[in-house]
Amino acid sequence: MHSTPPISLGIDFGGTSVKIAAVRGAELLGDIVRIPTRDYPQPDDLLGAICDAVARMREQHPGLAAIGIGVPGAVDFDRGVTYNLTNVPGWSNVPLRDRISSRTGLPTVLENDANCAAYAEFKCGAARGFRNVVVVTLGTGVGGGLILNGDLYRGSQYAAGEIGQVSVDYRGVDGPYGNFGALERYIGNQQIAELGARRLREAGREVADDNCSPESLAQAAAAGDEVAQGVWDEVAVLLGTALTSIVYLLNPDAIVIGGGVAHAGDVLFAPLKERMRSMLSFEFYEALRILPAEFGNTAGIIGGAALAAETAGF
Amino acid sequence: MHSTPPISLGIDFGGTSVKIAAVRGAELLGDIVRIPTRDYPQPDDLLGAICDAVARMREQHPGLAAIGIGVPGAVDFDRGVTYNLTNVPGWSNVPLRDRISSRTGLPTVLENDANCAAYAEFKCGAARGFRNVVVVTLGTGVGGGLILNGDLYRGSQYAAGEIGQVSVDYRGVDGPYGNFGALERYIGNQQIAELGARRLREAGREVADDNCSPESLAQAAAAGDEVAQGVWDEVAVLLGTALTSIVYLLNPDAIVIGGGVAHAGDVLFAPLKERMRSMLSFEFYEALRILPAEFGNTAGIIGGAALAAETAGF
Repeated sequence: MHSTPPISLGIDFGGTSVKIAAVRGAELLGDIVRIPTRDYPQPDDLLGAICDAVARMREQHPGLAAIGIGVPGAVDFDRGVTYNLTNVPGWSNVPLRDRISSRTGLPTVLENDANCAAYAEFKCGAARGFRNVVVVTLGTGVGGGLILNGDLYRGSQYAAGEIGQVSVDYRGVDGPYGNFGALERYIGNQQIAELGARRLREAGREVADDNCSPESLAQAAAAGDEVAQGVWDEVAVLLGTALTSIVYLLNPDAIVIGGGVAHAGDVLFAPLKERMRSMLSFEFYEALRILPAEFGNTAGIIGGAALAAETAGF
Repeated sequence: MHSTPPISLGIDFGGTSVKIAAVRGAELLGDIVRIPTRDYPQPDDLLGAICDAVARMREQHPGLAAIGIGVPGAVDFDRGVTYNLTNVPGWSNVPLRDRISSRTGLPTVLENDANCAAYAEFKCGAARGFRNVVVVTLGTGVGGGLILNGDLYRGSQYAAGEIGQVSVDYRGVDGPYGNFGALERYIGNQQIAELGARRLREAGREVADDNCSPESLAQAAAAGDEVAQGVWDEVAVLLGTALTSIVYLLNPDAIVIGGGVAHAGDVLFAPLKERMRSMLSFEFYEALRILPAEFGNTAGIIGGAALAAETAGF
């Protein structure tokens, strides 16, 4: 045991850039280094740039002891190999963990980015101290990660936690895999904007680019606009239904909700809690916390670093 | 390690009778002893009758080393206390585990009966050797149990696995807790019979008690009756939607389906597999097994005994 948490490196491997930062607990030590992926079309070149950045950060933080990488897609956690990275071509079946660890000499873990974000909330964020936690991220799509019995739950093919694919309607709209009623086809960013536009039109109001994004709908709802409030009530019914199903299945201590759409705050959380209270039995609801995420864009970096520290045994 | 599995006792605590048998692995040693609950309205009297039966069974099986009790309702597994037993009045907050273990001197575990049935399939039934398993029981209601990372997953209030409460329609019929679209309100025994009656009437056919039970609908469907086959196709769509949601969430190796309704066999399993194949992405479906349960009414006894043996460290 260290008296202070160890320093580890979080690497968030995105479609646009690879973001790297040194992390201690929930604290970023210094700035985030960004490497634009389009400058390095060959995986080997990008890998080289990442390892150069790691070397520079070790000069600043000599105590740096482990690396955690989060990637947008499924990974084989035990072998440290990427399957397919969403929006990052050329990165299928790359043994990314061992490539980084052999070049840096540091213990390295590779994990899906939504799992990293979930781990961040569990280890040092909103779900600190809980044992069973569902973390859901609301953005362009709906993603998630599960902490069960105090550890990341990955599933048999490391693919668990696809909350966006949970069905809310067996006769509903097609999900990306032919899965009817997939939650993310109802409450992704784009779908909320479309719903907002439809409800504004039905109310005889004008629809413009700047009044039906989730952000503008949240502002309008907070300012008392009833049409906008109605949109969030509808989102809460859909999200609340899926989360209720998950609670009946997993009986968690907490649900943590993050991502851009979660910034709507009370206009989403108040009707969401009401929907879930009305649909859950007393024993399931009384012990359940429904919490906003603590981390935003840094969740992947912080979670990757935390997972690295934990896996390396600090 | 023993060269043969140890003998333990499974007790299935039902609303009508308490059933007790000595078990080795998946094998019942001798007959099931049945104690009618109505003969013992006071918990203490029923407890005495159970302990008398246990004493007699130890005479027959001197190697009997542990007791596992399954009850119809939530329990506090760690404290060994019942919360509420469905259809068994007077049994709230009873420290049943310690009462039995202090009177018999044998290590005892107390578990929910659906969890016992799931554990039986995992330990010595259809899901032997798998790591992540969803067990669903189709009968009057729809119940279930989860094996995650090679162990029973109980959740924060020991209430996980309520597959019957998963929603298949956010605007659907009310579940028992106000939960819209609860699966068991669509495919419980009674609901399948009602659906059968409706479809028969729509087809201009007569409806009688003996042609719309799940059993008769299964026989008719197997014999080529298209109306009956259509009913099972509808059941498969509903069950398949809920199970698909669960697979996206938990990415299990196997789903095991038991209970009376599962006796329908291929007329249910064939359209169910087709529905799930069509709704799951390749990576989730290719590694998934959808299997009939191996145990019927004895699942609770066998699972309770297996859990007792495991918990006692054999």
